Amino acid sequence: MITLLELSNRLPESKIHNTNEPEKISLNSVITLYQNKPNSITYVSEKSYQNDAKKSLATVILTLHGWENLFENRPVITVNHVDLALIQILDIFFPPQESVSKRGQYFVVHPSAIIGEFTDIGNFVSIGENSRIGKNCKISDGVKIASNVTIGDNSIVGPNCVVYDNVKIGKNFLSFANSTIGGEGFRYIDFKSILYRVPQVGTVVIGDDVRIGSNTTIDRGGIDDTTIGDGTKIDNDVQIAHNVKIGKHVIVAGATAIAGSAVIEDYCKISGACAVADHITLPSGTMLAGGSGLRNTPTKKDIYAGWDWNLTFMEFQKFRANVKHILNLNKIVKKIKDIEEKLGIKE
Amino acid sequence: MITLLELSNRLPESKIHNTNEPEKISLNSVITLYQNKPNSITYVSEKSYQNDAKKSLATVILTLHGWENLFENRPVITVNHVDLALIQILDIFFPPQESVSKRGQYFVVHPSAIIGEFTDIGNFVSIGENSRIGKNCKISDGVKIASNVTIGDNSIVGPNCVVYDNVKIGKNFLSFANSTIGGEGFRYIDFKSILYRVPQVGTVVIGDDVRIGSNTTIDRGGIDDTTIGDGTKIDNDVQIAHNVKIGKHVIVAGATAIAGSAVIEDYCKISGACAVADHITLPSGTMLAGGSGLRNTPTKKDIYAGWDWNLTFMEFQKFRANVKHILNLNKIVKKIKDIEEKLGIKE
Amino acid sequence: MITLLELSNRLPESKIHNTNEPEKISLNSVITLYQNKPNSITYVSEKSYQNDAKKSLATVILTLHGWENLFENRPVITVNHVDLALIQILDIFFPPQESVSKRGQYFVVHPSAIIGEFTDIGNFVSIGENSRIGKNCKISDGVKIASNVTIGDNSIVGPNCVVYDNVKIGKNFLSFANSTIGGEGFRYIDFKSILYRVPQVGTVVIGDDVRIGSNTTIDRGGIDDTTIGDGTKIDNDVQIAHNVKIGKHVIVAGATAIAGSAVIEDYCKISGACAVADHITLPSGTMLAGGSGLRNTPTKKDIYAGWDWNLTFMEFQKFRANVKHILNLNKIVKKIKDIEEKLGIKE
Repeated sequence: MITLLELSNRLPESKIHNTNEPEKISLNSVITLYQNKPNSITYVSEKSYQNDAKKSLATVILTLHGWENLFENRPVITVNHVDLALIQILDIFFPPQESVSKRGQYFVVHPSAIIGEFTDIGNFVSIGENSRIGKNCKISDGVKIASNVTIGDNSIVGPNCVVYDNVKIGKNFLSFANSTIGGEGFRYIDFKSILYRVPQVGTVVIGDDVRIGSNTTIDRGGIDDTTIGDGTKIDNDVQIAHNVKIGKHVIVAGATAIAGSAVIEDYCKISGACAVADHITLPSGTMLAGGSGLRNTPTKKDIYAGWDWNLTFMEFQKFRANVKHILNLNKIVKKIKDIEEKLGIKE
Repeated sequence: MITLLELSNRLPESKIHNTNEPEKISLNSVITLYQNKPNSITYVSEKSYQNDAKKSLATVILTLHGWENLFENRPVITVNHVDLALIQILDIFFPPQESVSKRGQYFVVHPSAIIGEFTDIGNFVSIGENSRIGKNCKISDGVKIASNVTIGDNSIVGPNCVVYDNVKIGKNFLSFANSTIGGEGFRYIDFKSILYRVPQVGTVVIGDDVRIGSNTTIDRGGIDDTTIGDGTKIDNDVQIAHNVKIGKHVIVAGATAIAGSAVIEDYCKISGACAVADHITLPSGTMLAGGSGLRNTPTKKDIYAGWDWNLTFMEFQKFRANVKHILNLNKIVKKIKDIEEKLGIKE
Repeated sequence: MITLLELSNRLPESKIHNTNEPEKISLNSVITLYQNKPNSITYVSEKSYQNDAKKSLATVILTLHGWENLFENRPVITVNHVDLALIQILDIFFPPQESVSKRGQYFVVHPSAIIGEFTDIGNFVSIGENSRIGKNCKISDGVKIASNVTIGDNSIVGPNCVVYDNVKIGKNFLSFANSTIGGEGFRYIDFKSILYRVPQVGTVVIGDDVRIGSNTTIDRGGIDDTTIGDGTKIDNDVQIAHNVKIGKHVIVAGATAIAGSAVIEDYCKISGACAVADHITLPSGTMLAGGSGLRNTPTKKDIYAGWDWNLTFMEFQKFRANVKHILNLNKIVKKIKDIEEKLGIKE
């Protein structure tokens, strides 16, 4: 439990309104506008929620400076940026568990592997020859780390994740369960109708502050490496094929597939259920709308949508607005034919 | 082995035809019309299969009342509902294995966890602090259950599944391998080109009689919970993002992705390889054809198809019937231009 | 380290050019044209890379017979087929690790299971009753093999893979991490709005020389089996539903979903992010372009593209070339109306 006064002290540039006794208001949970918990704070960053916020059962409302009187005479805390303040509040109410050199009951670490100070190792974990895990890491239950892997400080590897040989991961890495990093890239040579496997001897190199979700796969490179830049965040059920180069601070949402050797430059944002073809490049800052496919390198940074037509999102909206006409194209063709006939125009 | 007479006795309202000695016909397997096994029963629920059924090598045919003479003079058992009878027969021939308090050789259960009567715990399972598993459950090999999880009676958790902290699962739950329940939702705030993680402190709440397939992910909610209603069935390789609300008796087929905060009301049926955008609502009973995307809340319950165009399946069929005209749109445009020229119409 | 002379001796029909002392050139790595490593060989199989190859820092270039003088006076080794030679060279530089009857520290094999000679069994592996693993196999850490499974000689099962009861796998099988073979097919009967599970009592039968990637699922058959033919290669994150029949030497790239009872005949090539509808047949040799859907059985072998319109790839390219006209269909319709008006044509 923390008082509103203490909370405000921990949020730089925050201000308290509509209460004279913020040291008497206790808080220990964050709720949405529609939930009900005692000692709770809720948040509003769009004016369209003003009425819902008035009806909210929260003890305190977090909102922007200047909006303190939108919710009648309720205790309010105002900040410059609601979402960033919300992150800070959540970190105060739900402090991440520190690693403390915990060890599971059953685990196997190769004698040559090096495990950093305070790093936790869960049950049924295996760590192979010459692998190096940084300090303050959490290697969750069931993780399998092969040989010559390096993982930087303050990283969390989720339960049952698999990291193959030679993969290099930076610090502050975060992954969720059942993901696979460094599985073999998919390349077969078709010779006289037999498929010959091309060994994949590159690896995966991941920068600092990278996050991957659950059940995501990142394949190792064929000869060169698959690389993922600093600060990039990847969701669940994403497939990243061999030799893909993803830049820094990229977002890849769930169920998206990125084919071999594609290049995703810095600050791109790829929505969910997208497909990016092999060997194409997304210029820095390119965005893909949900459920879109891209088969060619776009000529410039933009928001793209639709399935392989290189339409911008604006164009895609026009496509959608006209889609019902497609249903009548046979009639349109017939009309033109009738007109041509009437005018004596020959095919 | 069971006789046709015994089988009929166990199927309410079934009738035997074309044999006077059903106690002499032994059965122990179910086959398709095209397989061949001794002591077998096959099934026909559509008349179009009549000829194939005549040629079937099955000992007995299961079909609808009134159809007993469609297959010449062969032993037939008739029922009101072929598929439901088939389920009963399969349960008789392949009775599910009962749980018997089996324990693997290596497993780790936190002392504070509570395991129900008769529940089996496989090898390499871990169960965390304060988690409660109901009775008659099967926790398969390699399952990782974190802290404060509850799982209801008669549930089966498939091999290597991961269930994160605080997840609540009802009774008669069934999951297959390598699925992840309660991984973190994907929300990052982009502030001055750095992506800040928003802690996800909600959880996943799953009703009774829910089924999920293999390698499926269900993320925990941000502040509120991700919820899945009673009787809902989810296939393999499905991604369900944070704060999604799925109603009761919903079907979600394989490789489908449902984005954050989407609402899927009761009795919806979503086919495979679909994508449902964030924050939209599918009204109760809505259906999505395979490989469809939906970006907006539909105005009414219907069958939708196509990729983000809000076409009904009927409209989509018209789209498909006209798609070849699209390939000639440049010619259509040219024809109109020629006509306009001839008529002296100016652009 | 191997000399260029030795390497040439091991590549049938290869020839050395532009050096008189191939026994003095030592090699131990393969690089792309843009990497830099000492003692390295790079490869060129398309003339468009001639200039890049000239600038390459590789010690030796592998290329086609007759191309030996394209890269100025550099040491070159020529062959009939660059990719096949590359595979051989990679196998020489990175010889696959032999299995040697290695055993993990913790693993559980049922006494009735039979494990072949030299087969390795990793940590946290379980193998059930009556299962038979061939010789020279690698059962990686965390693999869960249920009962009555057979796996042929020289197979590698990747970390944390799950193989359900009764699955039959041929020899030289190769899978990567977190895949699920033999999970239950997804079939529910909707009766009075309740979904009844149909037990899936078939299994999965996989031929010889099959490869599956990471986080792929192959469901067991309902009554008949799901089957995968010899030599077929499947990528990551693929979903193969119950009763699917895949022929020989088929390629299925990543993130593709194949619905129930579909038939994929021999030599088909399905690109990434595709969806194949249930119960359709892809004739032998059919190809699907990336991100394509197919809802009907095509009338003949071809390359198909687009989403459920049965367009060939050639037609799809015309679709794409005309897609911008769709954005103006409302104007086209208006123009026709104007013309009809002018001509006195009535709707």
